[in-house]
Amino acid sequence: MKLATLKDGTPDGPLVVVSSAGTRAVAGAGIAPDLITALRDWPHAEPALRALADALDAGRAPGSFAFDPAACAAPLPRAPQWLDASAFLNHGRLMEQAFSTPPIPDFDTVPVMYQGASDDFLGPHDDVPLPSEADGIDFEGEFGVICGPVRMAATPEEALAAVRLVVQINDWSLRALGPREMKSGFGFLQAKPSTAFAPIAVTPDELGPAWREGRVQMRLAVQWNGERFGEPHGGEMNFHFGELVAHAARTRRLTAGCIVGSGTVSNAARSAGSACIAERRVIEKIDQGEIRTGFMRFGDRVRMQAMLDDGRAGPFGVIDQPVVSA
Amino acid sequence: MKLATLKDGTPDGPLVVVSSAGTRAVAGAGIAPDLITALRDWPHAEPALRALADALDAGRAPGSFAFDPAACAAPLPRAPQWLDASAFLNHGRLMEQAFSTPPIPDFDTVPVMYQGASDDFLGPHDDVPLPSEADGIDFEGEFGVICGPVRMAATPEEALAAVRLVVQINDWSLRALGPREMKSGFGFLQAKPSTAFAPIAVTPDELGPAWREGRVQMRLAVQWNGERFGEPHGGEMNFHFGELVAHAARTRRLTAGCIVGSGTVSNAARSAGSACIAERRVIEKIDQGEIRTGFMRFGDRVRMQAMLDDGRAGPFGVIDQPVVSA
Repeated sequence: MKLATLKDGTPDGPLVVVSSAGTRAVAGAGIAPDLITALRDWPHAEPALRALADALDAGRAPGSFAFDPAACAAPLPRAPQWLDASAFLNHGRLMEQAFSTPPIPDFDTVPVMYQGASDDFLGPHDDVPLPSEADGIDFEGEFGVICGPVRMAATPEEALAAVRLVVQINDWSLRALGPREMKSGFGFLQAKPSTAFAPIAVTPDELGPAWREGRVQMRLAVQWNGERFGEPHGGEMNFHFGELVAHAARTRRLTAGCIVGSGTVSNAARSAGSACIAERRVIEKIDQGEIRTGFMRFGDRVRMQAMLDDGRAGPFGVIDQPVVSA
Repeated sequence: MKLATLKDGTPDGPLVVVSSAGTRAVAGAGIAPDLITALRDWPHAEPALRALADALDAGRAPGSFAFDPAACAAPLPRAPQWLDASAFLNHGRLMEQAFSTPPIPDFDTVPVMYQGASDDFLGPHDDVPLPSEADGIDFEGEFGVICGPVRMAATPEEALAAVRLVVQINDWSLRALGPREMKSGFGFLQAKPSTAFAPIAVTPDELGPAWREGRVQMRLAVQWNGERFGEPHGGEMNFHFGELVAHAARTRRLTAGCIVGSGTVSNAARSAGSACIAERRVIEKIDQGEIRTGFMRFGDRVRMQAMLDDGRAGPFGVIDQPVVSA
């Protein structure tokens, strides 16, 4: 099942069910006014939304309309929590070199995760307003999950079973501000402006074999100003999403609608390219002796789209957005 | 003006206006159903709420009732963001020794701040469910502010002018988990379970001379299991709240209702005692050569109440809550 949220000026926006082909949509308002309400009442809302999706695919959903990704907000325009890991250790090890920060304790065995702002997410085609090019504007292509309720101290198995929806994320980062915030020990704050999401959130079953071992088994194809930047594969994630969600819930309960991210998708093979500029820069330094790539300028665009192993486009739709001066 | 939120099982809870004496209350529902709605419409809601408060104080508010702090949730049971600083440098310097973490860069000139969970706050008399005594259960007495909207890159002066309400906070901490999260650079997550608030949020004018230079000029009297623990003064805060809010808004806009905390109130004078156990422990080690105080056990209680310089109780009411096994 594919779900999305339209922009209508309200904080949560109206929920729509999207057809399997991603071309048609129908309002979910008869079942739940918005996605957060559906998630809070998932045992009732999910079967009703699936029945509506079936009717939409069969051409029997009254009031259906052409689905327009440009009219979409993030699937959850705001969420109770947004917790982003760094679960691709290849990326983390490279970033230690990029930021000249000390090795993270237990990095191979305990996930690292920061709490991000969750009140003001960006839609897939929204402008990204930022204050200064000097802050080192960077994209970060990721996958993530939206959870149902998770009890405090849940096991990874319980946590994985609480995954309701899978999403595709651009976790905007300001690289000039990151190292000092890391060295403070208090974590990222100014370095992490509003995060953006692809238009369509999908139930795990919709991914078929591309949801396996608690990981999104797809490549994330990233283009910067129309040029290929990388297409690392999500299957190389070193912790699975159940482990990440359980880490988040170690000392707190998670209410329905919390979002947990993978961190930047990253592969050991250099041929995969990168899903963020900072990683390419440190690879340039390691492999070629000097950094050749700058960060983003106002007016630049980034495009991200998940790709299945057979070359077909993934189900999340496209993130394609420009950076602008705030 | 004094505002509070009752517990009724809904996520935001009903708003009440509290009398100047803190003894009577009246529903604010005719003006705004809950505090977050009032904050989003503050230019209209504030004068109407003040008129209702005046009527309550004059004994002319129909439907008023005895105010029961035990019936209260946090003033905002959930908020768009919760951003907690460490603005008492005396505390921060001691904690560097307690955690054996390296000195924070620019600690004297740039605030440090972590993003906390803001979806599940505790009321002033709620049980505090936690998974394990071995995590090093600690309280942290703080002051904080609830803001109206703040633009990205606002100045400290603009940010200070956006302060709508002042609050008193117990930022629960798990000290066994903090050092590794600091050393990861990603900041506190498992080390910070749900945060608790005193029942009454007050407008800055209500504080009179105790709101001065962007600081809460009161002592925070802390008792652990009925014994005096400390009463450090809020006036020693090294950054004022306008500077803290502006730091938070450097690369993001803040929507109405974001909460910014001072970090643990702490004074250079040893006679003031401490507002958290970890600070007392490191002082014991420095002054007496060994740590004598353990962390909290299940069943322990902490009580926090702000005190004016003339010895009268502050306006926020009391936090008094026990730690329990989750």
